[in-house]
Amino acid sequence: MTRTVNVGVLGATGTVGQRFIVLLSSHPYFKIHALGASSRSAGQKYREATRWKQPVPIPESVSDVIVRECKASEFEGCDIVFSGLDSDVAGDIEKAFRAAELAVFSNAGNYRRDPTVPLCVPLVNPSHLEILPHQRSLQSPPLKKGCIVTNANCSTTGLSIPLHALEKAFGPLETVMVTTMQAISGAGYPGVSSLDILDNVVPLIGGEEEKMEWELSKILGGYSSKSKQFDLHATSPMKVSAMCNRVPVLDGHLECASVRFIQQPPPSIEEIKKALSSFTCEAQTLGCPSAPKQAIYVHEEPDRPQPRLDRYFQNGSGVNVGRIRPCPVLDVKFVVLVNNVSIGAATSSIINAEYAVAKNII
Amino acid sequence: MTRTVNVGVLGATGTVGQRFIVLLSSHPYFKIHALGASSRSAGQKYREATRWKQPVPIPESVSDVIVRECKASEFEGCDIVFSGLDSDVAGDIEKAFRAAELAVFSNAGNYRRDPTVPLCVPLVNPSHLEILPHQRSLQSPPLKKGCIVTNANCSTTGLSIPLHALEKAFGPLETVMVTTMQAISGAGYPGVSSLDILDNVVPLIGGEEEKMEWELSKILGGYSSKSKQFDLHATSPMKVSAMCNRVPVLDGHLECASVRFIQQPPPSIEEIKKALSSFTCEAQTLGCPSAPKQAIYVHEEPDRPQPRLDRYFQNGSGVNVGRIRPCPVLDVKFVVLVNNVSIGAATSSIINAEYAVAKNII
Amino acid sequence: MTRTVNVGVLGATGTVGQRFIVLLSSHPYFKIHALGASSRSAGQKYREATRWKQPVPIPESVSDVIVRECKASEFEGCDIVFSGLDSDVAGDIEKAFRAAELAVFSNAGNYRRDPTVPLCVPLVNPSHLEILPHQRSLQSPPLKKGCIVTNANCSTTGLSIPLHALEKAFGPLETVMVTTMQAISGAGYPGVSSLDILDNVVPLIGGEEEKMEWELSKILGGYSSKSKQFDLHATSPMKVSAMCNRVPVLDGHLECASVRFIQQPPPSIEEIKKALSSFTCEAQTLGCPSAPKQAIYVHEEPDRPQPRLDRYFQNGSGVNVGRIRPCPVLDVKFVVLVNNVSIGAATSSIINAEYAVAKNII
Amino acid sequence: MTRTVNVGVLGATGTVGQRFIVLLSSHPYFKIHALGASSRSAGQKYREATRWKQPVPIPESVSDVIVRECKASEFEGCDIVFSGLDSDVAGDIEKAFRAAELAVFSNAGNYRRDPTVPLCVPLVNPSHLEILPHQRSLQSPPLKKGCIVTNANCSTTGLSIPLHALEKAFGPLETVMVTTMQAISGAGYPGVSSLDILDNVVPLIGGEEEKMEWELSKILGGYSSKSKQFDLHATSPMKVSAMCNRVPVLDGHLECASVRFIQQPPPSIEEIKKALSSFTCEAQTLGCPSAPKQAIYVHEEPDRPQPRLDRYFQNGSGVNVGRIRPCPVLDVKFVVLVNNVSIGAATSSIINAEYAVAKNII
Repeated sequence: MTRTVNVGVLGATGTVGQRFIVLLSSHPYFKIHALGASSRSAGQKYREATRWKQPVPIPESVSDVIVRECKASEFEGCDIVFSGLDSDVAGDIEKAFRAAELAVFSNAGNYRRDPTVPLCVPLVNPSHLEILPHQRSLQSPPLKKGCIVTNANCSTTGLSIPLHALEKAFGPLETVMVTTMQAISGAGYPGVSSLDILDNVVPLIGGEEEKMEWELSKILGGYSSKSKQFDLHATSPMKVSAMCNRVPVLDGHLECASVRFIQQPPPSIEEIKKALSSFTCEAQTLGCPSAPKQAIYVHEEPDRPQPRLDRYFQNGSGVNVGRIRPCPVLDVKFVVLVNNVSIGAATSSIINAEYAVAKNII
Repeated sequence: MTRTVNVGVLGATGTVGQRFIVLLSSHPYFKIHALGASSRSAGQKYREATRWKQPVPIPESVSDVIVRECKASEFEGCDIVFSGLDSDVAGDIEKAFRAAELAVFSNAGNYRRDPTVPLCVPLVNPSHLEILPHQRSLQSPPLKKGCIVTNANCSTTGLSIPLHALEKAFGPLETVMVTTMQAISGAGYPGVSSLDILDNVVPLIGGEEEKMEWELSKILGGYSSKSKQFDLHATSPMKVSAMCNRVPVLDGHLECASVRFIQQPPPSIEEIKKALSSFTCEAQTLGCPSAPKQAIYVHEEPDRPQPRLDRYFQNGSGVNVGRIRPCPVLDVKFVVLVNNVSIGAATSSIINAEYAVAKNII
Repeated sequence: MTRTVNVGVLGATGTVGQRFIVLLSSHPYFKIHALGASSRSAGQKYREATRWKQPVPIPESVSDVIVRECKASEFEGCDIVFSGLDSDVAGDIEKAFRAAELAVFSNAGNYRRDPTVPLCVPLVNPSHLEILPHQRSLQSPPLKKGCIVTNANCSTTGLSIPLHALEKAFGPLETVMVTTMQAISGAGYPGVSSLDILDNVVPLIGGEEEKMEWELSKILGGYSSKSKQFDLHATSPMKVSAMCNRVPVLDGHLECASVRFIQQPPPSIEEIKKALSSFTCEAQTLGCPSAPKQAIYVHEEPDRPQPRLDRYFQNGSGVNVGRIRPCPVLDVKFVVLVNNVSIGAATSSIINAEYAVAKNII
Repeated sequence: MTRTVNVGVLGATGTVGQRFIVLLSSHPYFKIHALGASSRSAGQKYREATRWKQPVPIPESVSDVIVRECKASEFEGCDIVFSGLDSDVAGDIEKAFRAAELAVFSNAGNYRRDPTVPLCVPLVNPSHLEILPHQRSLQSPPLKKGCIVTNANCSTTGLSIPLHALEKAFGPLETVMVTTMQAISGAGYPGVSSLDILDNVVPLIGGEEEKMEWELSKILGGYSSKSKQFDLHATSPMKVSAMCNRVPVLDGHLECASVRFIQQPPPSIEEIKKALSSFTCEAQTLGCPSAPKQAIYVHEEPDRPQPRLDRYFQNGSGVNVGRIRPCPVLDVKFVVLVNNVSIGAATSSIINAEYAVAKNII
């Protein structure tokens, strides 16, 4: 891969935008060409416009870049834009960028339920990008390159990867129950007040349970190139129940899951461990540079994964699974750790775009 | 109730012992008569022997009391001893105290599975104390007053109260799934290293899941005065699956539970709320002074209960339940908060003893 | 004291307002008569207008009270109003309430530097209330009862109490150096973002160092009834240097202080301990009901005071001092703990008002 | 530098030992040859003997290495050993290793006050290694290569670097006052109980204040090659007062310091900033691979440095300074952040050894 692809970042001054910038600043072929933020920030140098909150300094290459408004005309020369926009503005802006023939890879939730927009976890269902020609054809005028691709909610992403590996190995799941313990960084900045979370757990994240219960079906379901539709796991309805909590952890969502397979008797614990450990995906075989070497790391230690110790494994691009054991109610229960700011957010968008580049979809 | 009952505290210098002392020092009729700890502490003044970690000062009435060894001969004049002993020493000491005709109300786990020892959550099954004459009769020589009564594990206690209220109102449960987020105080002092829990969640508490899965059946099950046996919920086997986590919270275990009733269709959400809110128990009607005015407080706010805001309600003697809503997999899901150092520990022992006194069982 | 005094609370829905309500709802003679908040909240029931964040439930007596706008006409029947207003609105509102002949006891900082407004730490300089007749005489038209009294910044309050006790016993101080570690509740709600403070310390609290360095001189200085002026410690200039930090603690500011006396040789460590322990103030001798029994608790344990263990002592109305030892640079160094939400805020205003009532100043 | 130097690690299973291993496993010329731990661990594979607590996986190169006892005979083939031993065993073991002609670079405190042992902060006074021939000559029999070199206490290290830069530029300091807010990792594992530090600050770290007050004089003082003595800053006595606190931060000690120069008037704030920013040291000019590119990073942002955001800068090998401003009492005050597990511990030992190698001292 030697060609360089110019990219832009929308919402560049926010926390997701900052993550995009950290990751893209050392990317082998994506090159940051333009940064967009609110009109209040536009015109300023990036380092002055942002309140940088990453544990590494602002990359020198963007430090003095002048921030632009999030208008497509300001992003000429870009092939791809990554959107870290807040959902209250993402809808209109992303649509306008698509109309201007830009490929938008968005972390915002606005278009996840759009029946023509792929909702892609890059280690699971990047093949859903097949719908893009159809999406383009429906715009007026029809588009050649413009498109919107979304990645999933952070907690959904983490769970979808082992669930997909299990379905790939052992057939469809019938039931999924999950309780999450989610990091504060999932709420953005300023996000969660310290008075609400220090020495505390908040047993509600607005809309999160509904997102997990719905998005899983789109991600784990199929895409019919004939009907040009996502089937939402319809061939085998899957019951999902999620209970979502906010905990005083900076990064890394921990999820306690229990599942039942349709196929009975279910696979053994050893078979499950092996299926998860050996799971590989197309983003890896295609050589996407941001894809993890190992998609799922299976821990044998009895008290892992833990957010603080395991969230940085492979720069947060894979998921950690541990405590795989029989469930007295369903078939098997286990613990998943997903780095919500990496594969749970910006990293997913970037691998989705790498996949699209590798497959010549954009 | 005007008679005074002399009580002792075993393991008085530990964290559970400190809680017993705080609660007993202002008790209307239990009067602290003797404090026991390890031989290393014996002979010292209490304030010198303990590393006091409570957010209130050491009660003056015990500050200069000389700590004794945990030998029954040192506890003459006591009718009841409360045991906050560690499980590695509790077994032998509690047995010796029982043999010396003392009524032992223990927070330790050693005898919870003993078929002749009641495992009592005082808001649920204090009627299991009926077994005490049988327990006494089996000792050699048979005892007149000596006995051992245990309270349950802290996370089990919290869940058992709403589950009992549901079973009382709507008949037996078929399935219970629970994921806990447990406070560090549950591990005693020094307990959890700060390096293990700051900015972290640990998805394992050794033995805790097994305790929850087993103890619930004894607590929620019946006692046959005829066969002199606990039935372990045998008339209607109940599947229980627990996933236990340690979170950076000082006090208060939060538990995300989902249940299915045997009776179908299940009760409505409103019926469940009403059954929980209006639940009362014998410890209340008997006027046990440490029993909560309201056993179960049902929150209507969407983001409650929370450990920091709700753990001190009624001095921690009741439980909080919130987010009662349908479960896409089982019937209904909800969140429970139990104050693990109050009703989850010392307060339970004390109410159990109050109940026994009120019923003239001891 | 049997007369009842009707009081109002301004900014009743904020965190300081909530504290006023908790304290006043069980006050022996102050009776909550009216609650004021922004026009957005006015007209609603208090429990609906506020996001209650206290670890005790909303007092029943105010739960259904209709919130009013912060206009003096809405507070007829009140003698006193306690102000927990934010400083961006406190200036105009408090002035208007004073003009309407209400006695305003304010926790806001707006008038602290006004040369006619007393800045009172009730355990230190309530005698500064002597200026009120002068303050009233300067208004046009001159007032009979209306006045503004402020209490100090929370970290200043905590330090001023032991410093005053030292000056009372050993004469004026020449130098004070202090480094604070301040709780997040000092910043109000939502206040500090959890992303800024979890696993972190922020070495800046905007304006706080300047407040400490200046307010101490007004509080510890005298008031001349002849010139009707505060002397700002002018008879003996005192150098003060403050370094202020935010730490991940919920309540309780810890302050490491070192001081030098003018009088040399300085008092011994034992003399200092005795002077602090035995310090009493007029708010105590007058029997102000919210004054602490002991103004300064001196710890002998080597590792105290600590915020979590000592902040609730005497319901937060006194201060804790510990680690009193020689300083290799100045004379003596020690650690102070002040409960920033009690004596550091609402409790100060209330004792100031109790003092004014007891002295018939209002 | 192409030669490879075989090194051993003593106390390899502890937290400091784990840090040595992470740093050495990717070192350009130090090669881990032997790992030593207690006899209880000896004979086991490293990954089984240690409870790995680093946020990166165990380096593969040491994972299966068999741990040895800390006996010099087991470390044949090593030129250097790095000691992360606890102080209760470090004294005898390090002495024995020196006697066996090994160069010991120790993080333990046992020999810091030995008048023949250099106490080296590598960015400050590695020239103190000049004493090593003298140290060797005093052993019986005199040694050729064996020696002990210590690095300083973590909080002392952090402060010594900017203080040295200031003295280098502006002459000796007369007074230093410092209040520290130290991370829990400074206490090792399990170290600080979570019950002691969550939502809390502990205003005592046993012995730490004395260490800071004494060690600074040895580090900042000179070495006379004539008298073969450290002068402990004797030519210009420096008063130091330290107040040390433990805060709920994982890594990174923050220190609020204020200093007075002997030379008056003192340098301006701008001169000080420039002197700190431009400070370079011999470890840098010699090309020691673990030395930071920039020894002192001066922050202009008003609220920096912060532990969580700045501790990883340059992999923790330099220090961060911010908030440089005039002090109303002394001359200038500022905030220092030192990564206590990097330059405050293992990294210092490694750079000291790199310096010794570069200078052919060992």
